[in-house]
Amino acid sequence: MSLGIIKIDHIGVATENSSAQNLFENLLGRPIFKEEHVQSENVLTKFFQVGESKVELLEATGDEGPISSFLTKRGPGIHHIAFEVHDINIAFEEAKKMGLRLLNSAPKKGADNKTIFFIHPKDTSGVLVELCQST
Amino acid sequence: MSLGIIKIDHIGVATENSSAQNLFENLLGRPIFKEEHVQSENVLTKFFQVGESKVELLEATGDEGPISSFLTKRGPGIHHIAFEVHDINIAFEEAKKMGLRLLNSAPKKGADNKTIFFIHPKDTSGVLVELCQST
Repeated sequence: MSLGIIKIDHIGVATENSSAQNLFENLLGRPIFKEEHVQSENVLTKFFQVGESKVELLEATGDEGPISSFLTKRGPGIHHIAFEVHDINIAFEEAKKMGLRLLNSAPKKGADNKTIFFIHPKDTSGVLVELCQST
Repeated sequence: MSLGIIKIDHIGVATENSSAQNLFENLLGRPIFKEEHVQSENVLTKFFQVGESKVELLEATGDEGPISSFLTKRGPGIHHIAFEVHDINIAFEEAKKMGLRLLNSAPKKGADNKTIFFIHPKDTSGVLVELCQST
């Protein structure tokens, strides 16, 4: 059994306000290449390319939603790590067979033209893991 | 000014015990390729290769040290993100010029044959950032 993980697709960073974009532009020495509002999650996403992976800044755009909750509970910081898989539907079925607790009842549309699902951090040593495939 | 970041070298994950190795072997579908005890930090490190980057599990081997402190404060989870730079000494000087607060007074020897230093999370939206170069 294997989830078919290829590489780190991105690291998601929960940020408190738009000044984080400036911080990361200085740190990484490059501008964002994309900004996308995921309305269903109340999250504004901003992407940096770093080698074969991305850094995704996550800004809450309302009081409800996963990033707003995370910021209230833990403050800004790394929110999740996303791995690219060969086939998201096979990965989903394999993850269920492996007994991993999943946060989604099926793969769903995410930001950056991806189909995604999340694994519960209790099954991954406290790390919120996203698996994703480009669509 | 630029720190000369090339890619994500690794993601460091603080783990409570050695069962995390089994969890990540199942998740990533591969074994660790290296285990290294960093005695000065009381940390046992275990490395997985994932694409061009690595996942580094961090296990405390004593009550004193950065991983033991992190686990007591926040529990298991993502501890830091490390970026590979072209030249660690230039990156160190540039980071100081940029006014970033650094956790080390000079680049130092880290695990995995690297020379490293850390940037204070207050200057990077709560993310503990390591910069590193292979030696």
